[in-house]
Amino acid sequence: MKKFVLIPDSFKGTLSSAQVCAISEKKIKEIYPQAQVISIPVADGGEGSVDCFLSAMAGEKVIVNTFGPYFEKIDAFYGIIEGGDTAVIEMAACAGLPMVEGRKNPLKTTTFGVGELIKDAIGRGVKKIIIGLGGSCTNDFGVGMACALGVKFFDELGNEFIPTGGNLIKIDKIDLSEVDLKGVEFITMCDIDNPPYGKNGAAQVFAPQKGANEEQVEFLDLGVKHLCDLIKKDFGVDLSTLKGGGAAGAMGAGTAFFLGSKLKMGIDTVLDTVNFDSVISGADLIITGEGKIDGQSLRGKVVIGVAKRAKKQNVPVISVVGGAEGDVSGAYEQGVSAVFTINKMPQDFSISKFNSAENLAFAIENILRLLKAVK
Amino acid sequence: MKKFVLIPDSFKGTLSSAQVCAISEKKIKEIYPQAQVISIPVADGGEGSVDCFLSAMAGEKVIVNTFGPYFEKIDAFYGIIEGGDTAVIEMAACAGLPMVEGRKNPLKTTTFGVGELIKDAIGRGVKKIIIGLGGSCTNDFGVGMACALGVKFFDELGNEFIPTGGNLIKIDKIDLSEVDLKGVEFITMCDIDNPPYGKNGAAQVFAPQKGANEEQVEFLDLGVKHLCDLIKKDFGVDLSTLKGGGAAGAMGAGTAFFLGSKLKMGIDTVLDTVNFDSVISGADLIITGEGKIDGQSLRGKVVIGVAKRAKKQNVPVISVVGGAEGDVSGAYEQGVSAVFTINKMPQDFSISKFNSAENLAFAIENILRLLKAVK
Repeated sequence: MKKFVLIPDSFKGTLSSAQVCAISEKKIKEIYPQAQVISIPVADGGEGSVDCFLSAMAGEKVIVNTFGPYFEKIDAFYGIIEGGDTAVIEMAACAGLPMVEGRKNPLKTTTFGVGELIKDAIGRGVKKIIIGLGGSCTNDFGVGMACALGVKFFDELGNEFIPTGGNLIKIDKIDLSEVDLKGVEFITMCDIDNPPYGKNGAAQVFAPQKGANEEQVEFLDLGVKHLCDLIKKDFGVDLSTLKGGGAAGAMGAGTAFFLGSKLKMGIDTVLDTVNFDSVISGADLIITGEGKIDGQSLRGKVVIGVAKRAKKQNVPVISVVGGAEGDVSGAYEQGVSAVFTINKMPQDFSISKFNSAENLAFAIENILRLLKAVK
Repeated sequence: MKKFVLIPDSFKGTLSSAQVCAISEKKIKEIYPQAQVISIPVADGGEGSVDCFLSAMAGEKVIVNTFGPYFEKIDAFYGIIEGGDTAVIEMAACAGLPMVEGRKNPLKTTTFGVGELIKDAIGRGVKKIIIGLGGSCTNDFGVGMACALGVKFFDELGNEFIPTGGNLIKIDKIDLSEVDLKGVEFITMCDIDNPPYGKNGAAQVFAPQKGANEEQVEFLDLGVKHLCDLIKKDFGVDLSTLKGGGAAGAMGAGTAFFLGSKLKMGIDTVLDTVNFDSVISGADLIITGEGKIDGQSLRGKVVIGVAKRAKKQNVPVISVVGGAEGDVSGAYEQGVSAVFTINKMPQDFSISKFNSAENLAFAIENILRLLKAVK
């Protein structure tokens, strides 16, 4: 065993992907001290996405003094990779839910800072920008971002303003004439299917966890619908059924319309960008994992995205998980060689969640011990 | 992977050793259809011990019409192995706790039937008899067994009688003159250290689960002490501190005194008898296991007994367990290559115990899948 590739998802509620990588790498170094270990801590769009790319490939972090969710000045960051050709931005850097702890209000919060990061990256001459959605505190359809990039919004009286989730409804006219994206290609990392509005839309499904009450949810939903209708009327673009358009407070729809961005599964974006097919060439084992594997819901998952590619090169993939529910044979069919659960003792999750790091280390150690013992 | 040896302990409260073997063998046959699988379902003395030997080596089961715990007529059995040279008897066949369900009373129950099985085996010309202690309903010091073999017990008035736990105290004289064991070698499988009587003795520790109340426990304990004192006075043999003498209602002490038996760890007896060192020669993997592994209490365990021997031949051993508590590195030092827990989901034992078969099958399948995938 000379080469290991670690590419786990986070274990929701217990361990981040970076923690899973660190614990696993430590055990590999103990048991196979000579082995090469490549860690790719996947963050599928949310917080940590930039670090994911930067840990997997050469690059640098750029700090930008910009605006936070309440237009307050903050230092935010993004990543530059591929020799300056590609920027990676996580919207959580300027509009993340943890930034508004104690003052959540998706009617007032903005993605303006995200637009500033994009502008900065365009100014550096990048050819491609990857935007990670996830963990946002906003429901503004990305109009804040759009304003930062030169889009103008006017109300019924012809007054220009910077809309937020709470006054999308007031937008009467959109002017795109001063926007210049310099031909940059945009990719939005987005792992959900939700449309912009309606029963499964951004506000109805996600705004409550961002602090909206029932009445506010309805109002936010109406705002997004209003903007979709306006865009359809004035630009002939129908966003109403866009899969993933409802991601991150309808930021999915916003990046599609204002930036012409493609919406793409986070894991596929990561795997394409880090040249995963070359990374795993010659690897003896790929270790992935997630909080829980469930044979019924394999779509878009890190584990399955990884396994599909590994299968083509015939590289073994194990998935180390917090739980395996029901029949997981679907995962084997997609290329997962084996699934190992980390539960050292029969304990309810309310107890075992405090032992996740120890349990994971134990599972990884014993998998490696087995491989070492069996020639 | 061409040859597997399965030699698990039972998973207490959920799966018998034979069930663990069956589940594991099924998975091996699915994933390595060509592999040779040798199953040795260890029962360490209690119910299933005879089947353990008979599944691991050539032999036959002998049925004997004899006496149950209340001197009722029953059909019991023992095993003949090694071309008729060795008999294996489990005392649970004639004096097992399940036989007295609803009528437990260690003051009245007898090991007489066990003696009859021994007599039958001696009559067949065996050279060695292995007696498995465990799962008994008696506290009679093996005097019932002794009577069946010709030992005579007399009370103060000189009347001969067949004592049980409740009247050991009345024994005044023991006559061994009519006993003829034909030079047979006896080995008693016994995994506990308890002395015949006292705070850690047979009655105090084990009689409550055999149905004795507090007063009866005291009385049984006095009876065993009385007999030890008598044997010391009349025969110069001090059984009072014999380790394992308290096993199975002081049957340990009884086999030592009346049969001249050695008391030996169950797992060592099994491993010696089945010629484990030859069985594992050329094996690619040994799978053992138990309900729970605990780094602090490794002595006398099946897993460790197996691992120690495997280590000498450098054969990999994995232990598949229901739970691993604390630091188990002591097990690695003794030769266990790796430990895998079977808990598919983070669930309390009160729930997971109903999923043990499925969980074990899942763990075994994925261990095999891993080995198959990693060349």
